[in-house]
Amino acid sequence: MKRKVYLDLISIEEAKRMFYEHFKITHSVTKVSIWDAGGNVLAEDITAECDVPPFDRARMDGYALIASDSFEADEDNPITLKIIGEIPAGVVSDIEVNVGECTIISTGAVIPKGANSVIMVEYTEKEKSQVKLYRPVVPGENIMFAGSDIKIGEIVLRKGNRLSPREIGVLAALGITEVSVYQQPNVVIISTGDEIVLPGEPLESGKIFDINGATLTNAVRECGCKPNFLGIIKDSPEMLIDKLKQALSMGDVVLLSGGTSKGVGDISYNVINELGKPGILVHGVAIKPGKPLLVAVINNKPVIGLPGYPSSALTVFEVFVAPFLRELAGIGRHEKRVLEVFMATRVDHALGRHEFLPVHIIRKDSNYFAYPVLTGSGAITTLSFSDGFVEIPSNQLYIDENERVTVELFSNAIEPADLVFIGSHCLGVDLIYSLMLKQTPNVSVKLINVGSMGGIRAIRRGEADIAGIHLFDAESNEYNMPFLQDILDQVAVLRGYKREQGLIIEKGNPKNVTGLRDLLRDDISFINRQKGSGTRILTDFELEKIAQLENMTFSELIRDITGYEVEAKTHSAIASSIAHNKADIGVAIYPVAAKYALDFIPIREEFYDFVILNDSLDKESVQLFIDTLRSDEFKEHLPVIHPGLQTTEETGSFINGL
Amino acid sequence: MKRKVYLDLISIEEAKRMFYEHFKITHSVTKVSIWDAGGNVLAEDITAECDVPPFDRARMDGYALIASDSFEADEDNPITLKIIGEIPAGVVSDIEVNVGECTIISTGAVIPKGANSVIMVEYTEKEKSQVKLYRPVVPGENIMFAGSDIKIGEIVLRKGNRLSPREIGVLAALGITEVSVYQQPNVVIISTGDEIVLPGEPLESGKIFDINGATLTNAVRECGCKPNFLGIIKDSPEMLIDKLKQALSMGDVVLLSGGTSKGVGDISYNVINELGKPGILVHGVAIKPGKPLLVAVINNKPVIGLPGYPSSALTVFEVFVAPFLRELAGIGRHEKRVLEVFMATRVDHALGRHEFLPVHIIRKDSNYFAYPVLTGSGAITTLSFSDGFVEIPSNQLYIDENERVTVELFSNAIEPADLVFIGSHCLGVDLIYSLMLKQTPNVSVKLINVGSMGGIRAIRRGEADIAGIHLFDAESNEYNMPFLQDILDQVAVLRGYKREQGLIIEKGNPKNVTGLRDLLRDDISFINRQKGSGTRILTDFELEKIAQLENMTFSELIRDITGYEVEAKTHSAIASSIAHNKADIGVAIYPVAAKYALDFIPIREEFYDFVILNDSLDKESVQLFIDTLRSDEFKEHLPVIHPGLQTTEETGSFINGL
Repeated sequence: MKRKVYLDLISIEEAKRMFYEHFKITHSVTKVSIWDAGGNVLAEDITAECDVPPFDRARMDGYALIASDSFEADEDNPITLKIIGEIPAGVVSDIEVNVGECTIISTGAVIPKGANSVIMVEYTEKEKSQVKLYRPVVPGENIMFAGSDIKIGEIVLRKGNRLSPREIGVLAALGITEVSVYQQPNVVIISTGDEIVLPGEPLESGKIFDINGATLTNAVRECGCKPNFLGIIKDSPEMLIDKLKQALSMGDVVLLSGGTSKGVGDISYNVINELGKPGILVHGVAIKPGKPLLVAVINNKPVIGLPGYPSSALTVFEVFVAPFLRELAGIGRHEKRVLEVFMATRVDHALGRHEFLPVHIIRKDSNYFAYPVLTGSGAITTLSFSDGFVEIPSNQLYIDENERVTVELFSNAIEPADLVFIGSHCLGVDLIYSLMLKQTPNVSVKLINVGSMGGIRAIRRGEADIAGIHLFDAESNEYNMPFLQDILDQVAVLRGYKREQGLIIEKGNPKNVTGLRDLLRDDISFINRQKGSGTRILTDFELEKIAQLENMTFSELIRDITGYEVEAKTHSAIASSIAHNKADIGVAIYPVAAKYALDFIPIREEFYDFVILNDSLDKESVQLFIDTLRSDEFKEHLPVIHPGLQTTEETGSFINGL
Repeated sequence: MKRKVYLDLISIEEAKRMFYEHFKITHSVTKVSIWDAGGNVLAEDITAECDVPPFDRARMDGYALIASDSFEADEDNPITLKIIGEIPAGVVSDIEVNVGECTIISTGAVIPKGANSVIMVEYTEKEKSQVKLYRPVVPGENIMFAGSDIKIGEIVLRKGNRLSPREIGVLAALGITEVSVYQQPNVVIISTGDEIVLPGEPLESGKIFDINGATLTNAVRECGCKPNFLGIIKDSPEMLIDKLKQALSMGDVVLLSGGTSKGVGDISYNVINELGKPGILVHGVAIKPGKPLLVAVINNKPVIGLPGYPSSALTVFEVFVAPFLRELAGIGRHEKRVLEVFMATRVDHALGRHEFLPVHIIRKDSNYFAYPVLTGSGAITTLSFSDGFVEIPSNQLYIDENERVTVELFSNAIEPADLVFIGSHCLGVDLIYSLMLKQTPNVSVKLINVGSMGGIRAIRRGEADIAGIHLFDAESNEYNMPFLQDILDQVAVLRGYKREQGLIIEKGNPKNVTGLRDLLRDDISFINRQKGSGTRILTDFELEKIAQLENMTFSELIRDITGYEVEAKTHSAIASSIAHNKADIGVAIYPVAAKYALDFIPIREEFYDFVILNDSLDKESVQLFIDTLRSDEFKEHLPVIHPGLQTTEETGSFINGL
C-alpha cells in the first residue's frame, strides 16, 4: 500500500490559472428545433429573411378608410361612409377603398388597397351598409406597417445568445424552425475505489454504496452538460487506464472520484500522464475541503480527479468544475444562483487554507442567514443539510457574526424553507407536518433533529421558527419551562402533547431486562441518544441515580456500559437498532416500540412542547403549524397512529402567559 | 362577424381568487431513477433501511489500535506497536487487534475487532513490522461509527422535497435507486386564428407565422411541465370544440391563444361552457396587457385563453399561468428569478388598470436599472427587448425615477449583458462584436439599434456603455462632436472609422435615378430611416436643400415623396427593401449596397464614432471593445468584409482630449 503524503499544495487561483493556460474552450455545434430549443445557445447569427409583419396590418377591429375622409368628424357631427366589404384576418381581398368608402376590418387583417388608416369600432356606429364615424383618424393610425417590427436583412439574434421563450418567439415570427446551437458537452463520470458498490446492488460487508456517481451525474446535468456514468472501477492502474481511454474517446470532459477522502490521485498519477499531453497539471490544492484535487488536460480534454467524500466532491465540483462546464455548455456565468446572506454566528478560520464552508440558510423576513454545517466532511448528512458554501480566503482570520457574505448554492433547486423546525425528534411532529402538507401542499418545512438543547440554542440565535423540546429538570421536577427562563420575552411556548419515555427492548424480553440497571451486565449493550437531547438528559439523570445506589461515580458507571458512546439521533433509530439486534437496550418513546413491535418498560411520562420565536408568530407557515396542532384531526389521529402519544386539554394553548 | 366589446372587467386579484376557488392542485405520481431524478419533487417519505456508514470505518489512512496503548506516546518518547496485518478499504478481515498490536488501515476500511481508534499515518514512523506512535489517540478517534451519519429508521427525505444533487446523494448512500416523484403535468397548447400558419410552412399572403405556439411550449417547459402543442385551429366553434375535447382528454391544463390582440374569447365562450363544470369563470381582466384573458375550469382542469399578441400572451402567462403550473409541477414558488432594480426613468401610469410594464435591464456596477420597452404590444421586438416586467397596481399614479422596483424575469435563461451598445446600426460594429466573441467566447453584448440620437439619449441616462453615432451638424459642417458638448465631462469619445453614405438603388439603375431629387417623381418610391438616426438627419438635411431649390416648404416636399413615412431601422433593412423591389431609393452606407449587389450614388463621407460612458471605461467588456477596435485584425478585415468602411490613423484614439 502506498502511503502518499501531499507535498506541493498550490493555491486554487494558481490551479485555475494553470488549467486555463492548457485548456481552451471550444464548442461543437448541432441543430435543434425551435420547439425544443429553450435554454440552448445560438451558434449562428440569425438574419431576418422576411418582414414582420409581412404586410400592412390592422391593429384593431374597426373600419379601414382614407384618413382624410374622417378629418371633419366629431361627436356631434359624425361623418358617414359607405361599407363596401369586410376583411377578416388571414384573407387576401382585392377590395379597393375609394373616397367616401370603407371596409369592415378585423384585427390582424390586411389593410385594403386605397385605405391608409383604421378607426376603432368603439368610435363608430353601424347602420346597415353605412357607418358613422365619431372622431377623426390620422394617416397610419391603427396600422402596423409591413416590416415595422422586423425588416428583411436585420440581424435579429446573434451567436452566443441564449434562447429563452422570447428569442424563440422571434425565430417563430420569422418562420424559422431549426437553428444551430452549441452542442451539450459530454461529461464522463467514473467512480473509483475497492470499497464502493453501485446503489441497488447487494451491499457486502465492508462495502458502502457509491454516492458520487449519482450526485455528479445530476450536478453535471444542472450545468447544461450530458452526463455519462461509466460505473465503478477498482483501485487498479490497469483497469483505470482502460476506462480512461474509453472515457477520453467518448467524452469532452472526464470526472473521476474516489470512494474515500483520498481522491484518485494515488493510483492515477502515472496512469494519466501516459494518456497524452500535457497530462497532470495540479495534484493537491490548499483548500478545505478538496485538498486531493487532481487536474489534468489530455489533448484539450480536462480530466479532473475529485476527492472521495461526497460533500468534498460536490464542493470542489462547484468551485472548480462547474464554472468551465457551464462555459462549455454556453450557459452564462451568472446562471448559478448565489444568495447574499448574513453570517449567523462567528466563524473562525485557520490561516493558509482557502475554505469552502458548507452552510445552511434560514430566511427571516426578507433577509437570509447562513449557519455553518458542522457534521464533518465524511458525512453524507453534511451534504443534505448544506444549501451551499461560503468562501473564506486563506488570509482571512474569521467571519464575524452578522457579516454579509455570499453563498453559492449547491443547486438551482434549493430554496430556503417556509418553516424551520429544529429540536428533538418526535413522530408527533412528523404527523403535524403531514397534516400541514395535506392542507397546503406546497409548504416547505426544514426539520432538523439536533435534540432539545440544540433546538433552544437555535431559537436563541433566531435560527429556528419553532423548536420541539422535552427537557426534564431534576431540581424542579418539571418539564421544559425551567430551561426557557432567560428567553421568555422572546418566545411563546405552546403546549404540545404527552408521551411516555421508557426502555426499548427486544420482543419477549429474552434477556430478562428489568430496568436501566441491567446496563451494567456484561451481556447487555446499549444504544444512546446524542448529547443535548431530552432523552439523553433523562437517561443520564436516571443513570446518575443508579451510580449513587451503586456507590460509583458517573464516569465509572458509564465506562462499564457497553455502547454508552454510540449515539443515535432519533427515537426511530433507537428502535431500529434494537430490532436489528445491534443493541439490547435503548431509551425512547413508546410509539417507536409499537412501530417496531418491541417491548417497552416505562420510565416517565413527559411533555413534548413547542417553543416559538415571537418574531415568527405571524408567519403563515407558523400559523398553519399552530392551527394543525389545535385541529380535531390531529387530536384524533395522534393516539391512533402513534400509540402512547396523547393530546391533553392544554394542547395548542400558550403556557407562558401569552 | 361578431363585434364584442368587453363589459365586465374584473381585477386580477379577483380573477385569481375565483380560479383558485374552483381549481384544486392535485399531483400524479410516477417513479424515477436517481440518475435522472434531479429537479423532481418527492412524492413519498424516504426512511433509511440501512445504517450509513454500515460499519465502523476509518476516517484516515493510518493504524488501527487500542487507544489506551497510545496514551503515553509523545514526540520524544514514541510507543512501538507490532503490525499484525493490513486492512485495505472494501475488504472484510478477521484480524483481531490485541494489546500492543495494530494493523495498517486505509481510509474507509473496516475497523478490525479489538481496535477502538485510528492514528493518522502522519504521526507515525514505520520500521519493518513495527510502527512508532508519536502522539496519543483517544477512543473513537478517526473512526466514523456505523450509523453515525444516518441510522436505520430515520426519515431522511420527505414528500415535497425537491431533489437536487445533495438529496440524490442521500438516496445513493442508502442504496435507493428509484423513488416516487410528482409526475410532470401535461400542458396542451393550442393556437387559434384564421391568419396564422405554422413556422416552416409557406407563408401565403395575408398570413403571419404563429409565434405563441413555440414561445408557450418553451415557457411551459421552464415551469417544469410537459408541453404538448396541438397546432393551429381556425376561428370556428366546431373545430374548437373537437380540439378542446381532445386537449382535455390528454392534458392536465389547456392553454389557448389567439393570433391577434383579441384572444380567443369571442369564439370560445359558448364552446367552453358546453364542455363541463364549472366552465368559464372570468372573461376580461383590468390589466395591461392582457385584458381579454379568459379563465375556465372544466372538471378540475384549467382552460386558459391568452391574448394573441405574443408579448401580451407571455406576460399574462407569467402573471397568471406560470404560478399554478409551477405549483402543479411541485417547483417552488421562489424558483422564478426576480431582480431588484432601480427604475431608470419616471413612468406615468393611468389609474384603474393594473399594468405589467415590459422592461429591459442594464447592469451598472452591482446595481440593475430597468428601462420601459415602448415598442407596443403588437411587436415581437417588444418581446425580444424585454427582460421581464414591472407590476404597477391600478391605484398607483407613477413610478419615480430611481424608485426601487422588482422585475419578474421572463425566463431563468435571461441575464443582463456584459456590454450594452445602443445607437446607430453599422456593419462595422457587427464585425467588432464578432472579433470580441472570437477573443472572449462568453462575452455577452446587447446591441440595440435606435439610431444616433437614441444612442446619445441612452448614454445621457447611463443606459448604454457605448453609443455608436454618425450625426451631421449642418451649421459647423462637422460630425458628432457638436452633439456632445453638454455631456463631454461624462464621456470619452473614441474615433471610429469612415464610411460613405449614399443612395441605394436597383442594380443597373433601370429607373435612371440621379439623386434625391428623383424622389419627387411619381414613379419612384422611397424607404426612409427612423427619426433620430444619423442617416435620417442627413437625408432631411439634403431634402431641405432640395425644398429650397424647388421653392417648397419641407412639409410640402415630403408630402410629395411616396414612402417618406415608411421607416426601416437598419442599413441592411434599407438595402433589403430595395433588393426586394419594395422601394426604389433608400439612403444607406456603401457596404450594404455591395452586400446586396445594388447600385450606389455617394452623397457624403462621414465619421462613425463611439461615445463611451466614463463610468463604463473600466469594465472588462468595454476594454475588450476598445482593444478590438484598435487591433490590426479589425483594421485589416474591415475594408475587405465591408467595402466602403475604412479605418484611419485616428481610429481607436480618444478625440475629446481624454
